[in-house]
Amino acid sequence: MKPPLNVCVVGVGAVGIEILRVLKERRFPIRALKVLARSARPLSLDGESLRVEAISPEAFQGQDLVLFAGTEGEKGAAVTYAREAIRRGALVIDNGADFRMDPKVPLVIPEINPEDAKRHEGMIANPNCSTIQMVMALAPVHRRFKIRRVIVSTYQAVSGAGSKAIEALEAQTEATVRKVALPPSDPLPQTIIQNVFPEIGSFQELGYTSEEWKMVRETQKILHDDQMAITATAVRVPVVSAHSESVYFEIEHPAALQDLKGLWRQTPGVKLVEEPSYPMPVEAVHRDEVFIGRVRQDPFIKNAFSCWVVSDNLRKGAALNAVQIAELFLTP
Amino acid sequence: MKPPLNVCVVGVGAVGIEILRVLKERRFPIRALKVLARSARPLSLDGESLRVEAISPEAFQGQDLVLFAGTEGEKGAAVTYAREAIRRGALVIDNGADFRMDPKVPLVIPEINPEDAKRHEGMIANPNCSTIQMVMALAPVHRRFKIRRVIVSTYQAVSGAGSKAIEALEAQTEATVRKVALPPSDPLPQTIIQNVFPEIGSFQELGYTSEEWKMVRETQKILHDDQMAITATAVRVPVVSAHSESVYFEIEHPAALQDLKGLWRQTPGVKLVEEPSYPMPVEAVHRDEVFIGRVRQDPFIKNAFSCWVVSDNLRKGAALNAVQIAELFLTP
Repeated sequence: MKPPLNVCVVGVGAVGIEILRVLKERRFPIRALKVLARSARPLSLDGESLRVEAISPEAFQGQDLVLFAGTEGEKGAAVTYAREAIRRGALVIDNGADFRMDPKVPLVIPEINPEDAKRHEGMIANPNCSTIQMVMALAPVHRRFKIRRVIVSTYQAVSGAGSKAIEALEAQTEATVRKVALPPSDPLPQTIIQNVFPEIGSFQELGYTSEEWKMVRETQKILHDDQMAITATAVRVPVVSAHSESVYFEIEHPAALQDLKGLWRQTPGVKLVEEPSYPMPVEAVHRDEVFIGRVRQDPFIKNAFSCWVVSDNLRKGAALNAVQIAELFLTP
Repeated sequence: MKPPLNVCVVGVGAVGIEILRVLKERRFPIRALKVLARSARPLSLDGESLRVEAISPEAFQGQDLVLFAGTEGEKGAAVTYAREAIRRGALVIDNGADFRMDPKVPLVIPEINPEDAKRHEGMIANPNCSTIQMVMALAPVHRRFKIRRVIVSTYQAVSGAGSKAIEALEAQTEATVRKVALPPSDPLPQTIIQNVFPEIGSFQELGYTSEEWKMVRETQKILHDDQMAITATAVRVPVVSAHSESVYFEIEHPAALQDLKGLWRQTPGVKLVEEPSYPMPVEAVHRDEVFIGRVRQDPFIKNAFSCWVVSDNLRKGAALNAVQIAELFLTP
């Protein structure tokens, strides 16, 4: 696509807002910016006034690039409107979950499988936030030492469930301090203040949740490896933004701890944090990198390692990755 | 020991207070109760007035049973005073970490290895909170199907770091609502409000923390199995009380999911929570059981399973287990 572009962002929730920020920060070459949502309304973003227009098939006329922010839980707007945008000539990048496993839709992390993006038929899917940061850590190791097996437990921020979940955490925090009854947990399935719970998404086959299956199947798709044995436990924690993951993996070809650290030190988009420091959500928020720390060998099992991976789920986990996909198509 | 007994509790922090509560709730046969701490002071507990006396070697004279509450982080009072109590004829039960790996000190979970308690030389150690709840879940499975390997990630409440850590979380919660600068994180190493961090205890060999090594070595000692390969990632979360654990394990002898569930249904002290429900810290607090939920088979690896284990770290993880050890010695 020849810049500058007519760019359209669909959705002004937590991810949509972050996409608008990232486009501006990265000076994405925009001719005209259009922001769409269910209904028209004014929007103030970081001191700037934007006009949000009501979504309709015709609104996509003349757009070069359409970024769907997606939704957590329900179906995203892309289910209804992506075809309309593509038909009118736009490239669609969808952050929703609806098309990620469609064989005709590439699922792309630009640092890892940019070549997949070229095989699109009008739409490219952005992976799930918890998948992106894990794969950012695992992909360089997989290429060099072949990962056979992954066991991951997550510590996921409420912003992954949208801006209403952030408001719910805030309201519950205030109620706790005031010692009054907690407001409803909605849109989260349980109280989150001073609590953690292992339910993200809906329960699916074998008792795993949809979020846990995303980490399995999306990782296999991005890495083109159906043989990688992955199992996940996805847990919500009372953190506003930035997911943490306790990732355990086994490799086929022997490696020393220093080999892994050496790899991560030279991996673009990744930042290795050395002991006794380690990454944490409060420090990773608003940052673009995927932070890796607590890298350890299993004390008993050969070629097995643990690490602690933290990244802002709204940035690299969503908005940044989506904009980076778009940047793959900017021909100077 | 022939009841009623002269019982002494050392320490009036989070665990000491809970020991006093558990003794009362379980109608432990007490002739006279003595409460010791660094210095004398009055103590009001659940509406009752207690007198706390200053600790000294002579204070243990005439005591049948001495329960040391232990400390998190530093050395417990048992290091200085356990010998004095034993010399004066008391049975000592230590909740501190100082003697747990001493070969002469049994490390006991009454439901699992009560026979070890009989081999004491005056002192019995209470395991670490995160160890107890994991071993309560794993022990029946190990006996029947032999566990070869465990990979655990924890979600640990601040009360495990003592009552000052609870105050720190409360103060940080209030500062967040009031939008003022956060108070110091002390005694926790990092801010805990709206954060999680993988540092509990001190950093030790291979980059694992002392808390992580406790889960390895104490589990091996309690289960009398040095061959069990265990690796842990211990993480603090902004929860007041009750630890959660994402536990993955591999067994040697084949089992179906229903075999495991069947075992847990009939295990004393354990409560199986069935899908779509699952245990959570806010519901496990003040409860005696170890709750197990989210029991799943690994989708790819045979004889490997995940579960989610939640228990009140101050109850079964500390005070209750210690009092249960004492109950083993009550001869009617």
